[in-house]
Amino acid sequence: MSFNTFGHLFRVTTWGESHGPAIGCTVDGCPPGIPLTEADLQPWLDKRKPGTSKFTTQRKEPDEVRILSGVFEGVTTGTPIQLMIENTDQRSKDYGDIATAFRPGHADITYHQKYGVRDYRGGGRSSARETAARVAAGGVARAVLARLMPGVQISGYMVQMGTQGIDRSRFDAGQIGENPFWCPDPVAATEWATYLDDLRLSHNSVGAVIEVVATGVPAGLGAPLYGKLDSDLAAAMMSINAVKAVEIGDGMASAALTGVENADEIRMGADGPEFLSNHAGGILGGISTGQPVVCRFAVKPTSSILTPRQTINQRGEEIDLITKGRHDPCVGIRAVPVGEAMMACVILDHLLRDRGQTGGVRGVIGGQ
Amino acid sequence: MSFNTFGHLFRVTTWGESHGPAIGCTVDGCPPGIPLTEADLQPWLDKRKPGTSKFTTQRKEPDEVRILSGVFEGVTTGTPIQLMIENTDQRSKDYGDIATAFRPGHADITYHQKYGVRDYRGGGRSSARETAARVAAGGVARAVLARLMPGVQISGYMVQMGTQGIDRSRFDAGQIGENPFWCPDPVAATEWATYLDDLRLSHNSVGAVIEVVATGVPAGLGAPLYGKLDSDLAAAMMSINAVKAVEIGDGMASAALTGVENADEIRMGADGPEFLSNHAGGILGGISTGQPVVCRFAVKPTSSILTPRQTINQRGEEIDLITKGRHDPCVGIRAVPVGEAMMACVILDHLLRDRGQTGGVRGVIGGQ
Amino acid sequence: MSFNTFGHLFRVTTWGESHGPAIGCTVDGCPPGIPLTEADLQPWLDKRKPGTSKFTTQRKEPDEVRILSGVFEGVTTGTPIQLMIENTDQRSKDYGDIATAFRPGHADITYHQKYGVRDYRGGGRSSARETAARVAAGGVARAVLARLMPGVQISGYMVQMGTQGIDRSRFDAGQIGENPFWCPDPVAATEWATYLDDLRLSHNSVGAVIEVVATGVPAGLGAPLYGKLDSDLAAAMMSINAVKAVEIGDGMASAALTGVENADEIRMGADGPEFLSNHAGGILGGISTGQPVVCRFAVKPTSSILTPRQTINQRGEEIDLITKGRHDPCVGIRAVPVGEAMMACVILDHLLRDRGQTGGVRGVIGGQ
Amino acid sequence: MSFNTFGHLFRVTTWGESHGPAIGCTVDGCPPGIPLTEADLQPWLDKRKPGTSKFTTQRKEPDEVRILSGVFEGVTTGTPIQLMIENTDQRSKDYGDIATAFRPGHADITYHQKYGVRDYRGGGRSSARETAARVAAGGVARAVLARLMPGVQISGYMVQMGTQGIDRSRFDAGQIGENPFWCPDPVAATEWATYLDDLRLSHNSVGAVIEVVATGVPAGLGAPLYGKLDSDLAAAMMSINAVKAVEIGDGMASAALTGVENADEIRMGADGPEFLSNHAGGILGGISTGQPVVCRFAVKPTSSILTPRQTINQRGEEIDLITKGRHDPCVGIRAVPVGEAMMACVILDHLLRDRGQTGGVRGVIGGQ
Repeated sequence: MSFNTFGHLFRVTTWGESHGPAIGCTVDGCPPGIPLTEADLQPWLDKRKPGTSKFTTQRKEPDEVRILSGVFEGVTTGTPIQLMIENTDQRSKDYGDIATAFRPGHADITYHQKYGVRDYRGGGRSSARETAARVAAGGVARAVLARLMPGVQISGYMVQMGTQGIDRSRFDAGQIGENPFWCPDPVAATEWATYLDDLRLSHNSVGAVIEVVATGVPAGLGAPLYGKLDSDLAAAMMSINAVKAVEIGDGMASAALTGVENADEIRMGADGPEFLSNHAGGILGGISTGQPVVCRFAVKPTSSILTPRQTINQRGEEIDLITKGRHDPCVGIRAVPVGEAMMACVILDHLLRDRGQTGGVRGVIGGQ
Repeated sequence: MSFNTFGHLFRVTTWGESHGPAIGCTVDGCPPGIPLTEADLQPWLDKRKPGTSKFTTQRKEPDEVRILSGVFEGVTTGTPIQLMIENTDQRSKDYGDIATAFRPGHADITYHQKYGVRDYRGGGRSSARETAARVAAGGVARAVLARLMPGVQISGYMVQMGTQGIDRSRFDAGQIGENPFWCPDPVAATEWATYLDDLRLSHNSVGAVIEVVATGVPAGLGAPLYGKLDSDLAAAMMSINAVKAVEIGDGMASAALTGVENADEIRMGADGPEFLSNHAGGILGGISTGQPVVCRFAVKPTSSILTPRQTINQRGEEIDLITKGRHDPCVGIRAVPVGEAMMACVILDHLLRDRGQTGGVRGVIGGQ
Repeated sequence: MSFNTFGHLFRVTTWGESHGPAIGCTVDGCPPGIPLTEADLQPWLDKRKPGTSKFTTQRKEPDEVRILSGVFEGVTTGTPIQLMIENTDQRSKDYGDIATAFRPGHADITYHQKYGVRDYRGGGRSSARETAARVAAGGVARAVLARLMPGVQISGYMVQMGTQGIDRSRFDAGQIGENPFWCPDPVAATEWATYLDDLRLSHNSVGAVIEVVATGVPAGLGAPLYGKLDSDLAAAMMSINAVKAVEIGDGMASAALTGVENADEIRMGADGPEFLSNHAGGILGGISTGQPVVCRFAVKPTSSILTPRQTINQRGEEIDLITKGRHDPCVGIRAVPVGEAMMACVILDHLLRDRGQTGGVRGVIGGQ
Repeated sequence: MSFNTFGHLFRVTTWGESHGPAIGCTVDGCPPGIPLTEADLQPWLDKRKPGTSKFTTQRKEPDEVRILSGVFEGVTTGTPIQLMIENTDQRSKDYGDIATAFRPGHADITYHQKYGVRDYRGGGRSSARETAARVAAGGVARAVLARLMPGVQISGYMVQMGTQGIDRSRFDAGQIGENPFWCPDPVAATEWATYLDDLRLSHNSVGAVIEVVATGVPAGLGAPLYGKLDSDLAAAMMSINAVKAVEIGDGMASAALTGVENADEIRMGADGPEFLSNHAGGILGGISTGQPVVCRFAVKPTSSILTPRQTINQRGEEIDLITKGRHDPCVGIRAVPVGEAMMACVILDHLLRDRGQTGGVRGVIGGQ
């Protein structure tokens, strides 16, 4: 990953600012002959779209994606796919007073220090709006995976909001799309609605933990040592705005385990090796095991809040700042489809890299 | 990061297997004119070296590093620096019985599945022995930082072993080198000695959490959006053997915070902006703030234990396996200097990338 | 260079097809604070624009470039610059009969074989139209060079059309913009007009040799061994449509020289070393010498001609094909601004890479 | 290609100086399961080895290559292959007088200016000795190609020495290994012996043109637009020491052709498309056509000659310099196996990249 490009064979370069004319991305290295239209991408963008409930920003953006290149007569041609999303709701006046102030928790001050200049309108390049481009690219990755590896399923959901975690015993995948939090625990979802509403009304915000799981990923993806599947997932998730931690499998909790507990024992199943547990999160030595790939990441609370915070401005004056505007009380909600998109891109990139190096041939175990 | 290379301008390519004739790395893109001898690198390798206490593997490796290129008359020339460490203690017979068995928690099975062939001696390429090459490269990065940015200090230590965390109120940096665990809390260090000895004697092992902090890093390092400083740190740390999670600043805990709590408020100090807290871990929007860069990672327990675990072998037969040999009961101990090395390499790479793009010029705040 | 991206720190990713809605590029890694508007880029695009004389294709394209991101309040922000050029004159019916035929000398057959699908309208991605995006990116590079290294001047011109070379004794830089061929020899320019008109009227086309010279490039740019300045120039020029050869300095002719003749002897001038000749074309060991960087490339004749040629179609049928449409009789003419743009991008990329690695410090000679 | 690494999936990183303890390279991304021993590599190194006739340097180097990693039980494991060649004949005293002088035509002055420091012994990193590492890597590439694409044959030879070209009507591939010049024309080879001996005895040297042809390359390799097969070949060949020009197919001569002449007409053969000529050198639009891939490059005369040349030294003093030592009167001779090695590496890299993106599937023509 370097600058605004990620991926090695399936490469995504994003561009655009929150309040410029448009944002978008170039998807390069896409396999040819994959059916693709805007209609394949739009549902993923709609999932991330602002303004779908009172728990996300009220900014109104249709987030309509256009394919400008790389697709001909309904299929990918193997050439770069340009995806563009026009910005339509650019109420720049909402942000006028932050032109010279540095909002705490935001990248205002670091962009200013690094570049000496910044687009202050809505955070400019550092806005979460950039993640729409990732979701569009993820849609392309999903379309390719559907052809090359149809068994792969990618699902993201929220497992913790603020101090409130889900109860894993109530986990119901069918519930994920039934509440505004992508929460698989219906009881938690109900509680979170009140919890978040209270925070919102008290001019506050809160963090979250998102889990993204990919099932159906075959053994053998990942390119050790510095292109490990988990290493690339860590970079991908950490690159999402507001993410402060990434876990694979048991993650931080694995520190508290003993070797006896942590060993994912292996038995021989009808279709090959079977693991009796998945502390590893589906990755050993940077290479997928065939078990579900499990990745979690923590999203910090939205920094834009209506409670005044102490800060400075460009002239070095100390001020108290309220960040007006239309903000998500829990930006983690909209990070769910973004995390899914990054998972899709990383897995596809590794699928292509693996078949480049090994031809996709797998080592035999038993009479496989 | 791709395959066995990491870094963009300061690039490190490692090579070698646990029981081959040697391991090493090529450090490319190093600034010229930096004083460098083997004596500058050896202390870091000695810190990671096995066999220094009963709490690390009893394998005896002098880990003597040789500089084969890129240095002339005591200074770097700007050309690739080849660092080679010969493997001297290769008791291959210790590992004979795992030639066809897949040790649970190890990469044996995934290397076999991906490549169809693997060097089974001591884990081959997936051995923690590879990290010696990283430490050597980190030594070069430190030597360069000492010249280009002498205020940077990088310090790693263990903050949790198994279920036992340190007491932050007893944090004493001077203690870190005084116990075999790189533990800054002398009370915890004493307790851990008993704790780990018990685990070792019961043929078990345990995980750990390592914290690496870089102070003196100026504001402005990091290349958003996919070359963010935290994204590169996440990839770097996750690429270390046995690491399962990476945190920046408050990490996973930031999910439980509110926006009011999480805001690192800013005041104007004598030398420029000052933050009243550091929940962000020194990074906002992927760019350093000038505060300490704080990174933590979890290391899973050593998978090689003397307690039998269920597994299979290459013929698909189900077996019980004891992993004999000379293993670390807590591989996290030796991960401390490795984490420091990765931090040094990442920071230097970003320093070079930043002065490439911006010329090192910084935006002005107040009368700075 | 990989896929549709070139450059290491100053990175350009192009996208788009000849007859799609638009073409464009993302310029990433651009230094911040550089004044930039569409008006800075348009003159370079106008230079390459079709339809400016009877010697170039009569396709009418205004080639108006829009900056969609990366520039705020008139200066670059250090974030990705998206440049988009809409395709307005897409007479797809002109190309209808080549939907299934493979035009000799074109990439039709290889795109079909590699990808199994291709955008046959006007050559799709392999069209010379893509070079408009390079010229736009080159305009950005020139704007940056004007700030960082104002002494650099880049000039391209045609030195041979078909069998007709210029007379170097008549070289007059002032003439380059005064004829439709970018020819520095006014006599040759007159002769070429007749020569090319005859070829055009006889339904033929012809090749050319372009020379691009950069003066004011300081010593020290280039990153041996695989990022040599000449190596990157060779890749850059060879990537331009229809280019079949690249020369640095004396190029192919250097094979016929003796060592005594070829030595560029060095004397000490007022401002440092001075070379008595420039057989090397300003590059030694992959690093610039401070002399003019001299690069030449050969462009093959336009493959689209009205003279029937034998070929096959997708069904494997043998046919005779006339390529109708509005084609350049000498595509080399429009390659001149493209070659200049590639030179600008390569030099700027190396300037940034050099200051990244060395900080821009130079070794001293004499009392410099 | 960047710094000291080339290739995208099959990646080679070279290191080492002429008079350091060793040189070598890391070959990363190699497909697993390929039989490989030192005996597979040594013949290619022997072909490049100095001192095999009076027409090459009399430096005595056995150039014995050792495989330090990445191969286990006789086959590649998919992990990095480290190849090391020790320098044994390091008569540093031969080079003593050039410690501070800049040899005309050499990289002495540019390395000094860029890095401020240089290893002056035998040219250090800029020595042609580095090419031994390329030849070793090329040997690995050939071993892989022999497995994955056994029809590929790569052959290099000299087609021009100084002013003396071969007569193509006497081309006899069987002659290439029968003379010290890799010359396919036995009459020219005899004449060259006298020609070069005269030059050598008159303390002079001379340039050459090398042609490298790869047959059996299937259609479809190459990744437009900036990873074109010809673009990567141009970069690869231009990165070889002393190379000043690269041609594909008709190369510079294509500028003098008309479109009617240049069209490689296509007919349908028993096994698919057949071209009636190969002006394109086997590449259209950056993608291989299935015809022989034809690449030529010009090597300038050896700059180290016994005839005094004017130059300066580090103190800025003007001097006359004779470059003593054991030098090749025509360094182009030893560039032949180097050019072959680069061709092998580039083709293999593109084979892996292609099967990564497309899965190796090809578009159908006729009833194929």
